[in-house]
Amino acid sequence: MKLWGGRFAKKTHKAVEDFTRSIHFDQALAKYDLLGSLYHVAVLKRAKLLTPFEYKKLQKGLHSILSDLKSGNLKINNSFEDIHSYIQYLLKQKVGKPADKLQTCRSRNDQVVFATKLYCLDHIKALTEKIHALQKNLRSLANQHKDILMPGYTHLQHAMPIALSDYFHAYLNMITRDTERLGDAAKRISLTMGSGALAGTMIDSKNYSFPAKGDLLKTLTASKNALDTVSDRDFIIEILSALAILSMHLSRMSEDLILWASKEFDFIEIDDAFCTGSSLMPQKKNPDVLEMIRGSAGRMSANLLEILVVMKGLPLSYNRDMQLDKEPLFDAFRLMGSIFDVLSPLLQNLKFKKEKILSQISDETLYATDLAEFLVKNGVSFHDAHQIIGKLIRMSGEKKISLLKFSDSVLGKFHPLLNDKVVQTILNAKRSVLSKKSIKR
Amino acid sequence: MKLWGGRFAKKTHKAVEDFTRSIHFDQALAKYDLLGSLYHVAVLKRAKLLTPFEYKKLQKGLHSILSDLKSGNLKINNSFEDIHSYIQYLLKQKVGKPADKLQTCRSRNDQVVFATKLYCLDHIKALTEKIHALQKNLRSLANQHKDILMPGYTHLQHAMPIALSDYFHAYLNMITRDTERLGDAAKRISLTMGSGALAGTMIDSKNYSFPAKGDLLKTLTASKNALDTVSDRDFIIEILSALAILSMHLSRMSEDLILWASKEFDFIEIDDAFCTGSSLMPQKKNPDVLEMIRGSAGRMSANLLEILVVMKGLPLSYNRDMQLDKEPLFDAFRLMGSIFDVLSPLLQNLKFKKEKILSQISDETLYATDLAEFLVKNGVSFHDAHQIIGKLIRMSGEKKISLLKFSDSVLGKFHPLLNDKVVQTILNAKRSVLSKKSIKR
Amino acid sequence: MKLWGGRFAKKTHKAVEDFTRSIHFDQALAKYDLLGSLYHVAVLKRAKLLTPFEYKKLQKGLHSILSDLKSGNLKINNSFEDIHSYIQYLLKQKVGKPADKLQTCRSRNDQVVFATKLYCLDHIKALTEKIHALQKNLRSLANQHKDILMPGYTHLQHAMPIALSDYFHAYLNMITRDTERLGDAAKRISLTMGSGALAGTMIDSKNYSFPAKGDLLKTLTASKNALDTVSDRDFIIEILSALAILSMHLSRMSEDLILWASKEFDFIEIDDAFCTGSSLMPQKKNPDVLEMIRGSAGRMSANLLEILVVMKGLPLSYNRDMQLDKEPLFDAFRLMGSIFDVLSPLLQNLKFKKEKILSQISDETLYATDLAEFLVKNGVSFHDAHQIIGKLIRMSGEKKISLLKFSDSVLGKFHPLLNDKVVQTILNAKRSVLSKKSIKR
Amino acid sequence: MKLWGGRFAKKTHKAVEDFTRSIHFDQALAKYDLLGSLYHVAVLKRAKLLTPFEYKKLQKGLHSILSDLKSGNLKINNSFEDIHSYIQYLLKQKVGKPADKLQTCRSRNDQVVFATKLYCLDHIKALTEKIHALQKNLRSLANQHKDILMPGYTHLQHAMPIALSDYFHAYLNMITRDTERLGDAAKRISLTMGSGALAGTMIDSKNYSFPAKGDLLKTLTASKNALDTVSDRDFIIEILSALAILSMHLSRMSEDLILWASKEFDFIEIDDAFCTGSSLMPQKKNPDVLEMIRGSAGRMSANLLEILVVMKGLPLSYNRDMQLDKEPLFDAFRLMGSIFDVLSPLLQNLKFKKEKILSQISDETLYATDLAEFLVKNGVSFHDAHQIIGKLIRMSGEKKISLLKFSDSVLGKFHPLLNDKVVQTILNAKRSVLSKKSIKR
Repeated sequence: MKLWGGRFAKKTHKAVEDFTRSIHFDQALAKYDLLGSLYHVAVLKRAKLLTPFEYKKLQKGLHSILSDLKSGNLKINNSFEDIHSYIQYLLKQKVGKPADKLQTCRSRNDQVVFATKLYCLDHIKALTEKIHALQKNLRSLANQHKDILMPGYTHLQHAMPIALSDYFHAYLNMITRDTERLGDAAKRISLTMGSGALAGTMIDSKNYSFPAKGDLLKTLTASKNALDTVSDRDFIIEILSALAILSMHLSRMSEDLILWASKEFDFIEIDDAFCTGSSLMPQKKNPDVLEMIRGSAGRMSANLLEILVVMKGLPLSYNRDMQLDKEPLFDAFRLMGSIFDVLSPLLQNLKFKKEKILSQISDETLYATDLAEFLVKNGVSFHDAHQIIGKLIRMSGEKKISLLKFSDSVLGKFHPLLNDKVVQTILNAKRSVLSKKSIKR
Repeated sequence: MKLWGGRFAKKTHKAVEDFTRSIHFDQALAKYDLLGSLYHVAVLKRAKLLTPFEYKKLQKGLHSILSDLKSGNLKINNSFEDIHSYIQYLLKQKVGKPADKLQTCRSRNDQVVFATKLYCLDHIKALTEKIHALQKNLRSLANQHKDILMPGYTHLQHAMPIALSDYFHAYLNMITRDTERLGDAAKRISLTMGSGALAGTMIDSKNYSFPAKGDLLKTLTASKNALDTVSDRDFIIEILSALAILSMHLSRMSEDLILWASKEFDFIEIDDAFCTGSSLMPQKKNPDVLEMIRGSAGRMSANLLEILVVMKGLPLSYNRDMQLDKEPLFDAFRLMGSIFDVLSPLLQNLKFKKEKILSQISDETLYATDLAEFLVKNGVSFHDAHQIIGKLIRMSGEKKISLLKFSDSVLGKFHPLLNDKVVQTILNAKRSVLSKKSIKR
Repeated sequence: MKLWGGRFAKKTHKAVEDFTRSIHFDQALAKYDLLGSLYHVAVLKRAKLLTPFEYKKLQKGLHSILSDLKSGNLKINNSFEDIHSYIQYLLKQKVGKPADKLQTCRSRNDQVVFATKLYCLDHIKALTEKIHALQKNLRSLANQHKDILMPGYTHLQHAMPIALSDYFHAYLNMITRDTERLGDAAKRISLTMGSGALAGTMIDSKNYSFPAKGDLLKTLTASKNALDTVSDRDFIIEILSALAILSMHLSRMSEDLILWASKEFDFIEIDDAFCTGSSLMPQKKNPDVLEMIRGSAGRMSANLLEILVVMKGLPLSYNRDMQLDKEPLFDAFRLMGSIFDVLSPLLQNLKFKKEKILSQISDETLYATDLAEFLVKNGVSFHDAHQIIGKLIRMSGEKKISLLKFSDSVLGKFHPLLNDKVVQTILNAKRSVLSKKSIKR
Repeated sequence: MKLWGGRFAKKTHKAVEDFTRSIHFDQALAKYDLLGSLYHVAVLKRAKLLTPFEYKKLQKGLHSILSDLKSGNLKINNSFEDIHSYIQYLLKQKVGKPADKLQTCRSRNDQVVFATKLYCLDHIKALTEKIHALQKNLRSLANQHKDILMPGYTHLQHAMPIALSDYFHAYLNMITRDTERLGDAAKRISLTMGSGALAGTMIDSKNYSFPAKGDLLKTLTASKNALDTVSDRDFIIEILSALAILSMHLSRMSEDLILWASKEFDFIEIDDAFCTGSSLMPQKKNPDVLEMIRGSAGRMSANLLEILVVMKGLPLSYNRDMQLDKEPLFDAFRLMGSIFDVLSPLLQNLKFKKEKILSQISDETLYATDLAEFLVKNGVSFHDAHQIIGKLIRMSGEKKISLLKFSDSVLGKFHPLLNDKVVQTILNAKRSVLSKKSIKR
């Protein structure tokens, strides 16, 4: 039941079969392998390497396996070497002799690359839809809470007042770049056949042309360089890199939300349905989901790294090391998909504690830059204004006196333009946010 | 000489200054920081935050520092915190009081992102030119040696005959994808100002618009989301990912060449000028350059990884961790640039030992697939043909008899269609390569 | 069936259950969790938090689950949150009410750390045995082939003659360091209980002391610092680091063997039972096993990296991100175990092609250092000797004349001490290898 | 001025010299290379390959360069290939002809490994001292603040009351493991000579034995396997792994301190001398040092990874890729050293805001576990106690009523043992912490 054998005098050692077997994970390629074989038999028919009868039989057989797969009726036998051998076996069972022609002018090297590329195109499409759903949620959160002002942070220190919606839009921007990167990766995938093992096949290149339609997400063409096609895993690395960046973005969003859910920040309440408890501490309600999303950035970096290291220093063309590309790829799409499945409803059910958020806005130091800009608008150089307000803030901190309690005469000593009224006008979150005209909201 | 200070009651500790200082590496941003400041003062003039006189002075001062930099006359004082503080200091020396207005409505967060983006665009441009030069060399090697046929390898085992030029075209294809990825990364970089620290500035967004021209490699606009702009390092990661893949490709090319330069392969001679010797072994002539290029894939993966890990789990917006983005970025461009500088002439000076390469082509096992395809064309199923030829090859190996020495009667036992003449026709490298019609050469 | 819940007003969302579930992989901890619970109930009995009757029931229940596990009769229900909840459920089924006391004074944080440490100790032990088996094979190969001399390589270029057994001993040395590192990692694992969630428990520390015996591979004690214990994943990282180095060593051994199995080197024959073929090319016999071992170094680096990144920047104490430690750890031990299972018999069945190896020994450049040392022993400075022999080798190469064919007069021009006899004596592999007295063989 | 050359017909290409040059970083090895050469000449003298006169000259010359180095008077000429060539050049300048014998029976492969190992031993020693200094600070902080109780966190949520000193002891424990790992790495370094390029040398092994003394931090012996010695970079990887873990620990400590320094936590005040400001926002006082330490964990992971990837799949013995080990190694020790230089005084100058910390201790949910344990001690099963208190906490939260305000009758409905007095007794931080008897403080 192997796709090779005549040349071998001995049976393969059991440990070798166990070690090289991939069917337990590459069954994720079943659908794409079947689609590939459907196109391959069409090529063989065009090239007259199949009779019309044989073609019909094979086509029917492949469709029948495909429909078993779609209906969930395909049982995978994990004792086969890989999904490709298993499908070959099933086909033989179904159609008999013509199945012996399936591998004509095709190597698994090319077959696997084709199926994996189709897998990638399909999974980029599906993930992009999940990302769009999250983007919709972020936009809706931004709209719902557009009146909430809050401290903006740099270095996790209070910086300047911003709108809560700025956060959602920041994450929207990030995630939009992620979808663009995934789109570029998809764009760069060329769906080809005809590479053979590494040297091409005897079938004329024109027989390999098919337009994109149905499950074939791209135009199919003959390979331009067979050596490159069977040696290439760029498309996987590029996708894993895009997903690693996406995952890093989500780790940052999670960190923000975890901080906000702490007793000390207390800006949000995560719905009970999205938290878990402790086996020991009865009061616990933990943001586990967000923590696991944060941690997943580590796993996604590792997935990316694995394939980069595997490919390092490999001579052309195909080497079996490259089989190690599958597990990190499949893990990445599975993990990212499940993250979006849980993150979207979690965000939809977030409660923002407006009172608590607003209370932080009264921190007077948030307005230091606004005070400095007031001076600047009135002709003081920014350098001097920065110094003046820095000293004012220091004195307020050291003496523990609110800026609003400073007398005009004290303020005047810092700068003649400063007075009680000015300070009162400027220490206003709404005014501060509205004064930022560089950003179109 | 710091850009901050009024708020602080104490001098910064010496160890802190040493630890946080970045001028020894961020001086690579000098040019881009100066260009950024030139645009920034134009913005301030538009917003009437500079008088025409102040603007002229600042513009002249910045141009003067820029021209010192270009002529190599700018001495960097490494005791400053960073290149931005140092340029501020130089400007004050040159133009006096107006320099105090340079930082108006600008934070280093935004300033550094801008300069780094400009650095990236400029270095992508320069590296792409070096890549083009290498591509030219590869094309020229392919043309020069188009008559050399050789064994193609999978699993580093003889597979099927191919043309030496297939190798060069394979690497050309890989590297072409690399330039596309760099191009996409450049496309995605948005050159913006007006983010302030994280909340935007009081200057109207329209004042931040400038068309691409001269050193400004892209249209400059106001940021759409200040939080995102100052928190974003995607562009660096995307570039480092593209460079890591490029570097992986070069590691593979190096591996091929190192193998070919071994006594056992003996396919090429690397020019003396591109090899180094041994301090102990007088005969040694080593492909060190190629080994270091191969190893550099490790460093490039590490550069990519560093910034991915640094960014993981950081809350918005700017955090100082992000300063660790610079060294891997600068190292990556420097290293890749120097690789192309040395690899291009090395390839130009490669000598191919045609005789030795051709001698490997006589390995009869290389034609096993061609023999099987001969049977297939005559109606044998591929599965059977594979078995038949596999057994034939096994017998030839076990008995140590050349296929060309097999009698018709022996061959006929394997399959009636097989005979001496057929074998003689098929065991021909040129015929084999020409028979592969799926690839347009 | 969760270990928590009273505090929650709502049911957990389905997506959350799916996302946070770990039973499909943490069932690898079943045995260790059961052992841990057996010690935990003993602690509770000592602390009088269980009656003797309750203790007996719990002990019996746990032993019964353990024996189901050992006999392969334990069916895991993958719908549970984790293996710990599932065992709690099974225990309740078996012993009823007393099972409600199992979690007394214990959190999963502490429970999981304990079980994982025991898992690590057990798996280090098992892997070390497999490593010892490989070491035995290497030693036996070294003995079998001690008369085979071969070219040693630096930069994959012929360097100096060495013995084939030097290779095996080199790998033996490497792998010995690996076992030492694993031993140090095991030594550093402290097996503790009593951390509670992060603050310790009300049970006196002396109740937590048990000597090593049976399945308990180390003395069990009370934790010294509960915060540290539940936050610590050092032991996993240290093990993954040791395994990544081991895996790197095996990638190098694989590379050597893959090169040696190439047609161009042709030093070895890998047994048919340890090779695989091609679906397209009938002649192919590929060293897939070695390639996958080489590639596995990439996966092991990724496993190490994943947990390093996950842990970066986490505040104390336990965070759910840390659950991502399990899969890379389990994958690492599984993968390394399977590598040794296949590599040991592969090595045992290697055939060395003595003739082919010896033929490379006739490369005269291998003796250049010996020639230089001959001059040195006769008073020439090494610097001069290096130059002289370097030039001699160059002339031999350029003129394509064997050193053995050089006349005395030509040799004498390079140095008066050089002559035909000297060259003949020195160009001898056995002499060369025996002359290396710095290494005790 | 190269250590090789006679065999080469052409001058090295400028780009090759630039690309392969390492003196700008390997000058860090100068001291260790000189020490190595001092031992090497002693070996040569013992082997009678140097006359006593030559030996004296060389020894004096080497000592003179060493003393220039120590006094800071050694100017490095960066145009040399590496520090080893430069020292050879200096020695020739100083002692003339005998310098030509320095490289007798020695290759740079062995020389570099020796110097790097000595470098590692020396830097482990120095770093360990810095770590000890930090440990002293942590112990002293623990003593100073032993009366401060605070909320302990899991998942960054309030968990149970702990002592602030528990934190310091947790970090002490972590860092202690780090020093043990560094110690084990040092232990495993074997300081050897006599490997030659890869095959050993003609000098008898006994001549290579020297006891540890002075700058020689270990016993020096002859190598046991030359192939292994020149191919081995395990010691670097093991050290980088230990440092990556150390760095991860410090990233966690930094995260805790950054959180505590936020306005929302407000547990600590970092001294002005250890903070930096903003160029735009006058009020800013940022924990940059801690952020950069947190980020450094990314760099240290990358340093570790780089060398793991570089070594992957390299055939024996030495390959030039291995030169890429130096920069990550040197960077790692430099970075970690500078972190301890700044972190130790920062910690010494931390101010803890006792009032603010204590105020968080009044969070009643912190005592939920203590309430449950009260029931357990009175015979309630832990499972039931967990449910009862979970519901009590939920009601308190939903109705926003303090547990202390619950009437006996309400409490009694949860469990007859619960009443006002019990709650009042248990909601006490000191009592809670003292009740944890499993941890010896």
